Amino acid sequence: MTRIAVDCMGGDYAPEEVVRGCVLAYKELGLESVLVGEESSIRRILHKEGFDGKLEIVNAPDAIQMEEAPSNVLRKKGSSLHVAGRLVREGKADGLVSAGNTGAVLTVGKFIIGSIQELDRPAIAVALPNPKGKTVLIDVGANVDCKPHHLLHFAVIGHTYAEEILGISKPRVGVLSIGEEEGKGNELVKETYPLLKASKLNFVGNAEGRDIYAGTFDVIVCDGFVGNIILKASESLGFAVLHMIKEEVEKSLLAKLGALLIKPALNNFKKKADFTEYGGIPLLGAKKPVIITHGRANAKAIRNAIKVANEFLTHHFNERLSENLRSLIPQEVKN
Amino acid sequence: MTRIAVDCMGGDYAPEEVVRGCVLAYKELGLESVLVGEESSIRRILHKEGFDGKLEIVNAPDAIQMEEAPSNVLRKKGSSLHVAGRLVREGKADGLVSAGNTGAVLTVGKFIIGSIQELDRPAIAVALPNPKGKTVLIDVGANVDCKPHHLLHFAVIGHTYAEEILGISKPRVGVLSIGEEEGKGNELVKETYPLLKASKLNFVGNAEGRDIYAGTFDVIVCDGFVGNIILKASESLGFAVLHMIKEEVEKSLLAKLGALLIKPALNNFKKKADFTEYGGIPLLGAKKPVIITHGRANAKAIRNAIKVANEFLTHHFNERLSENLRSLIPQEVKN
Repeated sequence: MTRIAVDCMGGDYAPEEVVRGCVLAYKELGLESVLVGEESSIRRILHKEGFDGKLEIVNAPDAIQMEEAPSNVLRKKGSSLHVAGRLVREGKADGLVSAGNTGAVLTVGKFIIGSIQELDRPAIAVALPNPKGKTVLIDVGANVDCKPHHLLHFAVIGHTYAEEILGISKPRVGVLSIGEEEGKGNELVKETYPLLKASKLNFVGNAEGRDIYAGTFDVIVCDGFVGNIILKASESLGFAVLHMIKEEVEKSLLAKLGALLIKPALNNFKKKADFTEYGGIPLLGAKKPVIITHGRANAKAIRNAIKVANEFLTHHFNERLSENLRSLIPQEVKN
Repeated sequence: MTRIAVDCMGGDYAPEEVVRGCVLAYKELGLESVLVGEESSIRRILHKEGFDGKLEIVNAPDAIQMEEAPSNVLRKKGSSLHVAGRLVREGKADGLVSAGNTGAVLTVGKFIIGSIQELDRPAIAVALPNPKGKTVLIDVGANVDCKPHHLLHFAVIGHTYAEEILGISKPRVGVLSIGEEEGKGNELVKETYPLLKASKLNFVGNAEGRDIYAGTFDVIVCDGFVGNIILKASESLGFAVLHMIKEEVEKSLLAKLGALLIKPALNNFKKKADFTEYGGIPLLGAKKPVIITHGRANAKAIRNAIKVANEFLTHHFNERLSENLRSLIPQEVKN
């Protein structure tokens, strides 16, 4: 039985919603977790939930605040996040879920848990919705300045994610650029292109900004600077669009009625579009699954994150990733 | 009286819609243009429109195709775009409007028309909608790999655009990064930050992806690689969202009725959100206004582009930009 270490002190609704999420995962999915955080609070919430199952608690009352410098987590050895990371490193837990300070979770993933042998850097992937399915964008924030071979590694990670977790066979891989043709783009892209071309990935060529939500690629690689900005801009665009439509709707009684009628369809769409619904975003390439959920994660989101962490384990994601890094990158590119 | 050179052979609906746009600008706004393109076609369309005013035609039957390499425009001296650019350079026209191959228009702007003395590179700006107004994003594609001083220049260009054209006083300027604090971001951003801080701009600090559509900044600078990807991703996200909502709506009769009622409000929103409605995007810092419209520009969009080109002239945009480049950048930063 696998057990995921859950950082019960991280997130806007910690510890209540986080602990409730662990309970949901256990009750609804039979998934065990190790609850890391202030023990008395955790016990109180478990009691309130009428929970009598067996979930291990590890006391770690200190928390990393949302606005704290991420590197603090390395010094704060008693913080729930640090302790959770150490449990994973020491094999006492099989993965990590946190709704806390994203940078701090990344730091734990990179430096306490560490990456698998074949990689020098893990990367964050998101599966973005498009009219036909999903497109994996990788990296979206773990690696700011990148070298061409990092992007090549991200491509293999994204490929493995698309194939093993999203069930896409022979995923179409592209590198994010401006202009479709080889030779278009910035220096990083121009140097990455031949590496991808020489790999055994199903490399299709340059992807443009418009491809991200068009379903024309299954995996799009970029450095974490560009990826993070796209991700955050997309969220903010969605919000701005809804706000501006609402303002227009408010001006007319008929439109208001229309909005009422359209609401259930809109909610269905929102559910599909909200990638946090699926259980947060994974840091891929770490030795064990690390799932970062939204700071606003509620119990259901935490439950889903625990589920996703377990999926990576049951799909033997890391084993497949290691194999792919060895088999899809030709020897001459590795050197 | 100013006269804008209009590339009548560029764009998906050229020459018909482009010529009609010139007629609209003349009839509705009293703005003159020089129609550059195949003379007989232009005369035929003018005749069909029952136009009897005075609009100069310059015969240039050759066209740059949408998929052609942008640099071709420098060799194709008889192409409408090249001829139009030359008219501007020689002072026979006061600005350029084209719905053609964007890269080729940029090439003409950079190399035939050239940039004002204080700049080494012009940049493309878009005024993106947000719930409170507009945010200028610059550069969105004219400059792929940039140095810190380029971003500083873009900031002054964006400042001048926001102040002179959008009427925003003391525009809040930010540099696009990941993380709010100084020191966060990639190498380019880290080196640009102190230059912006030392300038006399109203520099607020790092902007994040989520600020682009939030109205928290008036001007956000980035290199053209990042900016172009954001712009295209945003367009494609908008399209994907509408498509996915439509699919959900199709599933329910009530929602379909709701969609019908909400349509006028939605159209109002679309108008506000569609920055091409305002007449294309300007290449700023060129010696004369250069306006790039969407390839799908119709007559109204061309009319608006001619109007915008004229606004840059009547606002003495370039004079103000030169002044600002001299006064807002301290001498020690210039060297």
